[in-house]
Amino acid sequence: VTRIAVLGAGRVGALIARELSADPALSVLVADRSEETLRALAGASGPLRTHRVDLEDPRAVGELVAAVDIVVGAVPGAIGYRVARAAIEAGRPMVDISFFAEDPFQLDRPARERGVAVVVDCGVAPGLSNLLVGRSTAELDEVATVEILVGGLPVRRVWPHEYRSVFSPPDVIEEYTRPCRMREQGVDVVVPALSGVELVDFPEIGTLEAFYTDGLRTLLRTIPARTLREKTLRYPGHAERMRMLRASGFFDEAPLRVGAVEVAPRAVAEALLSRAWAPVEGEEEFTLLRVRVEGTRQARRVERTWTVFDRTDLASGATSMARTTGLPCAIVARMLGAGRLREPGLYPPEHLGRDAGLAGDILRALRERGITIRESSHALG
Amino acid sequence: VTRIAVLGAGRVGALIARELSADPALSVLVADRSEETLRALAGASGPLRTHRVDLEDPRAVGELVAAVDIVVGAVPGAIGYRVARAAIEAGRPMVDISFFAEDPFQLDRPARERGVAVVVDCGVAPGLSNLLVGRSTAELDEVATVEILVGGLPVRRVWPHEYRSVFSPPDVIEEYTRPCRMREQGVDVVVPALSGVELVDFPEIGTLEAFYTDGLRTLLRTIPARTLREKTLRYPGHAERMRMLRASGFFDEAPLRVGAVEVAPRAVAEALLSRAWAPVEGEEEFTLLRVRVEGTRQARRVERTWTVFDRTDLASGATSMARTTGLPCAIVARMLGAGRLREPGLYPPEHLGRDAGLAGDILRALRERGITIRESSHALG
Repeated sequence: VTRIAVLGAGRVGALIARELSADPALSVLVADRSEETLRALAGASGPLRTHRVDLEDPRAVGELVAAVDIVVGAVPGAIGYRVARAAIEAGRPMVDISFFAEDPFQLDRPARERGVAVVVDCGVAPGLSNLLVGRSTAELDEVATVEILVGGLPVRRVWPHEYRSVFSPPDVIEEYTRPCRMREQGVDVVVPALSGVELVDFPEIGTLEAFYTDGLRTLLRTIPARTLREKTLRYPGHAERMRMLRASGFFDEAPLRVGAVEVAPRAVAEALLSRAWAPVEGEEEFTLLRVRVEGTRQARRVERTWTVFDRTDLASGATSMARTTGLPCAIVARMLGAGRLREPGLYPPEHLGRDAGLAGDILRALRERGITIRESSHALG
Repeated sequence: VTRIAVLGAGRVGALIARELSADPALSVLVADRSEETLRALAGASGPLRTHRVDLEDPRAVGELVAAVDIVVGAVPGAIGYRVARAAIEAGRPMVDISFFAEDPFQLDRPARERGVAVVVDCGVAPGLSNLLVGRSTAELDEVATVEILVGGLPVRRVWPHEYRSVFSPPDVIEEYTRPCRMREQGVDVVVPALSGVELVDFPEIGTLEAFYTDGLRTLLRTIPARTLREKTLRYPGHAERMRMLRASGFFDEAPLRVGAVEVAPRAVAEALLSRAWAPVEGEEEFTLLRVRVEGTRQARRVERTWTVFDRTDLASGATSMARTTGLPCAIVARMLGAGRLREPGLYPPEHLGRDAGLAGDILRALRERGITIRESSHALG
């Protein structure tokens, strides 16, 4: 029996824990600092144990992970890096979906020193997107362009936002304000978030709007494409609304004097938009990811497009966001348990994609769990 | 020499004072509580005197107005009613553009008792709009529909708001939140502000957007039309942006807990939009008023349309807002001085419009001062 600790029992961590606990060859321990959150998980079937622990305390994390074989990091981004360090220090292989802000390559040396494999950013985008880019790149002689479009949206469009936050609203607003790093024709450039608005038609769902956000992360370092872009998908009009709020100062972090108090307008916007964007129980949503890679193979220009489309699982109630984020992580956790990542060190998911066997198995496992992945390839020019 | 006191030396009050002081038959006294504001006026030519006084103190106002023949009220709306009461108590005829929230008909009995004429709401809309409605109604056997469109906008459209506040931003936000009273086919109805959005083409300036705001005031009581509507004009898209802010809670007055403080989102929006809407020195603006009246005359259905269009006066720098608001008031003040409003009591401007002589003289005086007023009449059906 392989022992796996899932650190963090939020929506995604809970889905990962349930998915893994369905396998009788695994013994799953879920740790969270909230007793309530853990109790909500108690109804899950399988050999699933819960453990209340302060995940902000590296020593507590170290003790916990020492008792298992594999670690899954599903904690808030703010503490993700510290949790990953603690797992590595304890010499445990790890897969992480906390999307921490720190440079993941800083984990490479400690992971090698401890002889463990560490997979970071293993959700949908980053995550599955990186895997598909890595796979496509490996099959080309030269990669020219990588373009990633990704978004999670409600099926029912309700005025004025036509949006429900699948991640925490402060993180969404951060995505709308942080300058976006990308590469155009070999030159690293930085453009404002919410710029480059264009309309894109999807057979699955109709016309959406795509705009730049800062999401390429490790790909900017690992993929030798001349052009690398990532855009977020929303219903048309969203970027304009958010740009208006940003341009008017509603996303400003500097304190503003209002009567007798000082307040950051952004904190007010976070509170109001959290309300306006709150997911509605029972409302269907979908996740859409399109990865397009252009390059040359045997001196011919080719284009390969992957489209991942997932909707709320009406049977279990699991959102597509939780599924498309949690399932890649759970599948890779099982691979770590099976010892399939032999080299110690850091694995951004594009490195898993390089390996045809690993990539094929991950995509197959996702399809078996009902996630639609379409692929098309054709020659250009 | 007729002595006139102008109470309030803001942008409109200052324009009224300068306009009146150019007439050697008038002696103008300007009162304000700000020494600085009065000093800024000192450069004006003519027999213009300034007097620092707390206009919130009815006794001080009473003493001041006792020393003149005619009173002009150009104070903030919040103290407008009190100032008008004080002028009436002192037995002085008055014309007001403070647009106070109280019911102006409450002033009718005190004005009659003191034997003075009091003209309220004497700006552009309310004001000139009422005069044109009154004039058109007087010339019809029966009035069916009154429609007023009015707005003040910058000539140069700058994203995202394409708007500069000609009145105080809190008053503009109030206009976007207060339910709008109107009449449709004989029935008094209340609709949300910012509703009924439609596009209207103006030869003067292109396509604008019109939406309901609560501005009919006395007309709902004085004009026996079956349908009465007023809409505000903005560049297209403005209402949608403001409705988004309102629907998201940014115009809420209830305090919101944000971290350690409590703040009304509306106060934050007022602060941010004051900045975003701040008039830019030297930027041209315009004021557009269209009054359309439908009715019957000698058993024929007729339609009459008045269009008032004014732009920044580049020579003096006076904005069209100050001109179109201040000039009707100054012209009526002079009529009061000449004793042309013989009956004591309350005069909403539509009652001035009933009198062909008064209305003709006011429109002529406005035209002489460069304000374009176009009129068209035609038979319907």
